[in-house]
Amino acid sequence: MVCLVIKSGGAAALPEWKALFARLMPSLAVRDWNDPAVDPAHVDYALVWKPEPGRLAKMVNLKAILSAAVGVDHITCDPDWPKTVPLIRMGGELPAQQMEDYVLWAVFSILRDAPLWRTGQEEKVWTRQTGAARTSADMKVGVMGLGSLGAPVATRLVRAGFQVSGWARHARTLEGVTCYAGTKGLNRFLQGCDTLVCLLPETPETKGIVTYDVLAQLRKPAGLINVGRGPLVVEADLLRALNDKTLHTAVLDVFEQEPLPASSPLWAHPRVLITPHVAAEASRASRAEYVAQVIRALEQGQDVPLRYDPARGY
Amino acid sequence: MVCLVIKSGGAAALPEWKALFARLMPSLAVRDWNDPAVDPAHVDYALVWKPEPGRLAKMVNLKAILSAAVGVDHITCDPDWPKTVPLIRMGGELPAQQMEDYVLWAVFSILRDAPLWRTGQEEKVWTRQTGAARTSADMKVGVMGLGSLGAPVATRLVRAGFQVSGWARHARTLEGVTCYAGTKGLNRFLQGCDTLVCLLPETPETKGIVTYDVLAQLRKPAGLINVGRGPLVVEADLLRALNDKTLHTAVLDVFEQEPLPASSPLWAHPRVLITPHVAAEASRASRAEYVAQVIRALEQGQDVPLRYDPARGY
Ligand SMILES: NC(=O)c1ccc[n+]([C@@H]2O[C@H](COP(=O)([O-])OP(=O)(O)OC[C@H]3O[C@@H](n4cnc5c(N)ncnc54)[C@H](OP(=O)(O)O)[C@@H]3O)[C@@H](O)[C@H]2O)c1
Ligand SMILES: NC(=O)c1ccc[n+]([C@@H]2O[C@H](COP(=O)([O-])OP(=O)(O)OC[C@H]3O[C@@H](n4cnc5c(N)ncnc54)[C@H](OP(=O)(O)O)[C@@H]3O)[C@@H](O)[C@H]2O)c1
Repeated sequence: MVCLVIKSGGAAALPEWKALFARLMPSLAVRDWNDPAVDPAHVDYALVWKPEPGRLAKMVNLKAILSAAVGVDHITCDPDWPKTVPLIRMGGELPAQQMEDYVLWAVFSILRDAPLWRTGQEEKVWTRQTGAARTSADMKVGVMGLGSLGAPVATRLVRAGFQVSGWARHARTLEGVTCYAGTKGLNRFLQGCDTLVCLLPETPETKGIVTYDVLAQLRKPAGLINVGRGPLVVEADLLRALNDKTLHTAVLDVFEQEPLPASSPLWAHPRVLITPHVAAEASRASRAEYVAQVIRALEQGQDVPLRYDPARGY
Repeated sequence: MVCLVIKSGGAAALPEWKALFARLMPSLAVRDWNDPAVDPAHVDYALVWKPEPGRLAKMVNLKAILSAAVGVDHITCDPDWPKTVPLIRMGGELPAQQMEDYVLWAVFSILRDAPLWRTGQEEKVWTRQTGAARTSADMKVGVMGLGSLGAPVATRLVRAGFQVSGWARHARTLEGVTCYAGTKGLNRFLQGCDTLVCLLPETPETKGIVTYDVLAQLRKPAGLINVGRGPLVVEADLLRALNDKTLHTAVLDVFEQEPLPASSPLWAHPRVLITPHVAAEASRASRAEYVAQVIRALEQGQDVPLRYDPARGY
């Protein structure tokens, strides 16, 4: 019997996972990550979010590690994670759709200067901006990272009426999106947009990529949306850019430290919108469906998409 | 010489209006609404926002009244406004584009439950929703009023990925939008949507149209966006519906009383977003352009669109 251990949503979520897999893949033995009756050597698959370092290495017969999230940095930060075992990222249509919706909300919030409305409401004061609002047709949105999330986000922004450019490691072709590639293309990409959407994975190369100098290249009024990972943005640089108006607005879903500590100056900044890492999180039902599909393919010896590549780091 | 008096933006705005018209229509004499040297009998056109009651009636040779805004209720509430003089609403592409952007912001805010993020940020607490977020493809948005603003808003919502229906007095055909008409079509329209966008003009027929019973017909979780006029929504009913969860979220740009008084319970409601009547307000440049176009057409004896019809009340 094929055995799947789960660490996602805690013990409280196990009954739901069990019920879902009972329907999708009745032959699968679904066990809790902390079940003492499970022999690590008999685990075939592990579906995990932030596994304790060293635990995966004990599962010596693992056929694949399935990330419960789209990102995998919560697994690869374990120095002992078994690098020869295939590591598969979460997929399916739902996370991409959610990410698109979130980024659209964030882009419209920046376009219309929604933080001003937020502080007005907090203080119960009726403050009308002076000067007419920008329209979406004037706004140039740049998407950093054109992967399983960035690419659909970029094309959705086009359909929603924005001017859109994109940046990735390799050259890409996306309808309606002006694409730039690699370190060489970065400055031209930045100088062509006013609102930057950071949707890169966290790797040694991308960590700290959004510096003060990067933000200073954007057209003004400049906006930043970080939905990738907190460490992509140098938080001290972000604050400096906000405070000297190099950056007008930031919409942040991810942070260097999560949960964002109450002491962070970002919480109360009048031109910042904070959300608690919620941009894209598929339902358990949709994730179970995706995982069942992946296990079925792997059991039949087929290739699966969204496989992590240790050489490139994502 | 054709004479235009202006009451929009106050005396401080007059130099800008003069400079704009000097370029667009050099032959036009542009005067301040309160200029004592202007003989009311010599005024040909009046571009106004909230004119003092009785003042327009004194301009006995007026060829047209030009509303500085898309709505005209700020003029028609004057019992003495000269009803035989053509009253022309503000037009051009800019107000419609701004309204589309605002409504998209509001719809995405409802979709993703943004008021929760607002209160979280205010209290500096990291609160993640439980359960996966809805996606735009699941959301059914209903637009009440399919005029110069409602129609482009409805089609833009379709392009942005929502399911959209619309309601007006007369049957309409709009690509991708399921349209309903008149009192007879109202209930079916309401029962088919979860988020209601109110974009009607204020008339004796539409005043107080959004009652508790109307809100109770929407699918749950129900959302309301009011960008028409405050009196369209019965504010006491709105609060009752919010408090008993008949209505989940409201995004409000217009109110029974504006500015919204600090004593209003709406300001601090955790499931309400408040904006200070800013959804669509074109720049002076774009309004001057539109007005010059209208005056030119009228001077040549041509018909102009967006003319108020006293019989129907909009
Ligand atoms: N906030 C949330 O709720 C949330 C939810 C899910 C995911 N995420 C984050 O979103 C990230 C992106 O997800 P994804 O599925 O779109 O990733 P993906 O499919 O792996 O795509 C990554 C993209 O980044 C580009 N890239 C990587 N390293 C780069 C570098 N050094 N320079 C330039 N471009 C580089 C890649 O370029 P190539 O196309 O050339 O390979 C690719 O376009 C995840 O890693 C995760 O951190 C956040
Ligand atoms: N919040 C803001 O910043 C802002 C800015 C600009 C305008 N506004 C408001 O938006 C309103 C709408 O502007 P608009 O230019 O789109 O108006 P419009 O072109 O006059 O269109 C009005 C629409 O409402 C429908 N309607 C009127 N009375 C009705 C009734 N009794 N039952 C059903 N439908 C009815 C009309 O139906 P038919 O198509 O059948 O005639 C039409 O579709 C303005 O009046 C103003 O109050 C707000």
